[in-house]
Amino acid sequence: MNSTPKRRYVVLAEGRLREAKTAHGVLRYGRDEVVAVLDSTLAGGSVRGTMPGLVPDPGRDAPIVATLEEALVLSPTSILVGVAPAGGRLPGEWMETLRAAAGAGLEIVGGLHQRLAPEFPEARVWDVREPPAEAPIFSGEGFGVEPKVALTVGTDAAIGKMTATLEIARAAGEAGVQAAFVPTGQTGVIIAGWGACVDAVVSDFVAGVAEDLVLRAAKSMPDLVLVEGQGALSHPAYSGVTLGLLHGSCPDCLVLCVSPDRGPGYAGVPRPSPARAARLYEEAAALVKPSPVVAVSANTKGLTDEEAQHFVEKVSDETGLPTADPFRHSVGPILEAVLGS
Amino acid sequence: MNSTPKRRYVVLAEGRLREAKTAHGVLRYGRDEVVAVLDSTLAGGSVRGTMPGLVPDPGRDAPIVATLEEALVLSPTSILVGVAPAGGRLPGEWMETLRAAAGAGLEIVGGLHQRLAPEFPEARVWDVREPPAEAPIFSGEGFGVEPKVALTVGTDAAIGKMTATLEIARAAGEAGVQAAFVPTGQTGVIIAGWGACVDAVVSDFVAGVAEDLVLRAAKSMPDLVLVEGQGALSHPAYSGVTLGLLHGSCPDCLVLCVSPDRGPGYAGVPRPSPARAARLYEEAAALVKPSPVVAVSANTKGLTDEEAQHFVEKVSDETGLPTADPFRHSVGPILEAVLGS
Repeated sequence: MNSTPKRRYVVLAEGRLREAKTAHGVLRYGRDEVVAVLDSTLAGGSVRGTMPGLVPDPGRDAPIVATLEEALVLSPTSILVGVAPAGGRLPGEWMETLRAAAGAGLEIVGGLHQRLAPEFPEARVWDVREPPAEAPIFSGEGFGVEPKVALTVGTDAAIGKMTATLEIARAAGEAGVQAAFVPTGQTGVIIAGWGACVDAVVSDFVAGVAEDLVLRAAKSMPDLVLVEGQGALSHPAYSGVTLGLLHGSCPDCLVLCVSPDRGPGYAGVPRPSPARAARLYEEAAALVKPSPVVAVSANTKGLTDEEAQHFVEKVSDETGLPTADPFRHSVGPILEAVLGS
Repeated sequence: MNSTPKRRYVVLAEGRLREAKTAHGVLRYGRDEVVAVLDSTLAGGSVRGTMPGLVPDPGRDAPIVATLEEALVLSPTSILVGVAPAGGRLPGEWMETLRAAAGAGLEIVGGLHQRLAPEFPEARVWDVREPPAEAPIFSGEGFGVEPKVALTVGTDAAIGKMTATLEIARAAGEAGVQAAFVPTGQTGVIIAGWGACVDAVVSDFVAGVAEDLVLRAAKSMPDLVLVEGQGALSHPAYSGVTLGLLHGSCPDCLVLCVSPDRGPGYAGVPRPSPARAARLYEEAAALVKPSPVVAVSANTKGLTDEEAQHFVEKVSDETGLPTADPFRHSVGPILEAVLGS
């Protein structure tokens, strides 16, 4: 999957570290090391000191610095754009920082829609959202993959599928089960250092690219392949990406990610209930390969402990499935269901 | 939708007119005129004389010529690559013909994966599979479209969805119902002179492009918008395209296209029965907007009249829906069901 040397990142998150999802993901789960985070508004401390709970492992802490110069002392190999800018395009100041980093020999890494390679023709650039040059059509080879393949799916987009997948992978590792994480979105790809953003792939090739990712992950002979899901079958803008990934990755089982419903969803479209979603994912999967929903991962962010407990119990009752909140409690019941299925 | 001047096509189908699906579509249904077909192996006659039944309307007949020179006398505006070459890329001889046509001032039109604009930098080229430069994200505006919107769906890819859609549109016109055809694949786009190949669009934008096509079609205030379907929910390689189109085009009703099952489908995946497919399309649509399957279009190619009749009755019994073969008999019952729904 990934035998390239590890990167040493400076993460650019100027003024935005608190909401920098990509930075948080790399700090918490990344294969590569973060040697420093660049945010002059929080400089002087460390990530763990500034945002307790974000990085449970003290070995993954990093200093927050005010300038690129301070970061360069720590011998980074790469600079990562760690947050999507408000207006979509990178502000001029950030471009200056990236130019200086490139001048110091650093690789530039970005996961935005805006491609950086054309902006820095002289630099080494990894545009994470750039689709694979040779995208295959789905072949059916994925049906024969040896290890068990599990895919996360959801009742909505942006509901915590990537984090749930990574937490299952982490718990598997702790339990001595060798799990391969298959990244399908920009943050996942940056965290793992390989993969593909399936939503940036031409639609004809989404299933083929998903199949190819699973085949590549299976080559290292893990016990379990865990595929990061995207979108939702019920999300009117992204449902096609979701179904392409569901069919292309040929999963043996599914983990449904849910959160408490907070009013109408995208474009006013209501989210399906967990039970309805579970049934629909199973029916859609079964058109190509049967794949039961074996567990539910509940994202209870914003709820009190009591509310969270009530929500988890309600979902478990309604779906008849093992349900757990991987963040608040343990991902154990989900991992058990995946392994036992 | 399309107020550009009509093209006058020379259709390039050298040695392959009999199997040239794109040429057949344009001859039978095209908005633009075909002034000549280039196939030296059949030259001397006319299309209707050579392939009876292909072009029922005598006003749509065209001469078959052996050389570009003969065609140029008929004042064409454009040369259309009317058949996909066996090896994927156009043979050198065809490239020579296209170069000569461009030299004579003709526009080059192609619907292949291979883009022609880079090959003929001096010429006017319409690469039909080139996705729209500005692809929108699905917004939900499509929910408010005034005319009734119908979409064709199928139990498999390449099952006759485009032809069924065009036949419904033709019958509507004959019945005094103003129908707008929305093309979503290369032949459909060439036939109508506008549209987009949704399978060539980046997956994030498939639903948005489909919605945009319907909004554009609705602008001419037709009584009915008929959207050409793509792929199948059960086709492992293309199901994502199908679901993106199903949700993005916001249809009010669906027409299910079926054919007799002839063994395992793509990558060994069995096709769903018509009844199962109808139920699944309705459930998938209902996640975003309810859209009943109101009729079934049966493709009975290769069957005897008796077998075809039996197949149509069987599908009608199993689905409980009006079922007709638009080619062998009449598309009337389907149009009636669409208008009455």
